[in-house]
Amino acid sequence: MRLVDFRPDRAWSIDVFGSVGLTQAPITAPLASGGVLQAACFRLDPGGRMGRHPATYPHVFAIVEGKGWVGGADGRPHAIGAGEAVFWDTGEEHEIWTDDGLTMIVIEWTAEVRPYERPS
Amino acid sequence: MRLVDFRPDRAWSIDVFGSVGLTQAPITAPLASGGVLQAACFRLDPGGRMGRHPATYPHVFAIVEGKGWVGGADGRPHAIGAGEAVFWDTGEEHEIWTDDGLTMIVIEWTAEVRPYERPS
Repeated sequence: MRLVDFRPDRAWSIDVFGSVGLTQAPITAPLASGGVLQAACFRLDPGGRMGRHPATYPHVFAIVEGKGWVGGADGRPHAIGAGEAVFWDTGEEHEIWTDDGLTMIVIEWTAEVRPYERPS
Repeated sequence: MRLVDFRPDRAWSIDVFGSVGLTQAPITAPLASGGVLQAACFRLDPGGRMGRHPATYPHVFAIVEGKGWVGGADGRPHAIGAGEAVFWDTGEEHEIWTDDGLTMIVIEWTAEVRPYERPS
């Protein structure tokens, strides 16, 4: 049993890609250290935005609190909120923003991972 | 951009290991389908418990809402809550329970992943 604290006081601000009101608190060691995945908690303050950029690795935004919008390759806003996950492919342009604030667990990986598909 | 809905109405109950008040909603496809990780949202109702069992894969409980206790190899209760992550090794006995309810993102993997370590 090993514990990692990712509460807000362990987070730091990120302003790359023109992001505003965005903080990150790591849960795992970074991919650069050799693992197959990295996970972190990202929080957007009310009015915050993670600026548009291409995905470095395939990853998922799992929204766990709050709501906002994502924009993908077509740039159109798509409303998302707690209990929704958005998968991005490597190189895919994407952004996320919020009026009310949101919290998400972001998981990135270096190998094959597929979204869940409901049995039809 | 691919979306996966993991809200409570997409979850189902799990009663293995003597678990009570526990539901799971997948975010990724299962490890059995060949990926290197699987992620899902687990929710414990107030008074709920995931029963004690050895970890099948290394994994992390990232608590995103609520609070409760975990017990690891030594069986002693350890208080945990939103913003804390608990890593388990393969084979490690563990359990989690709550009086008030909690929600966690659970990530399991098949290869090397390490917890985040704060710079000292």
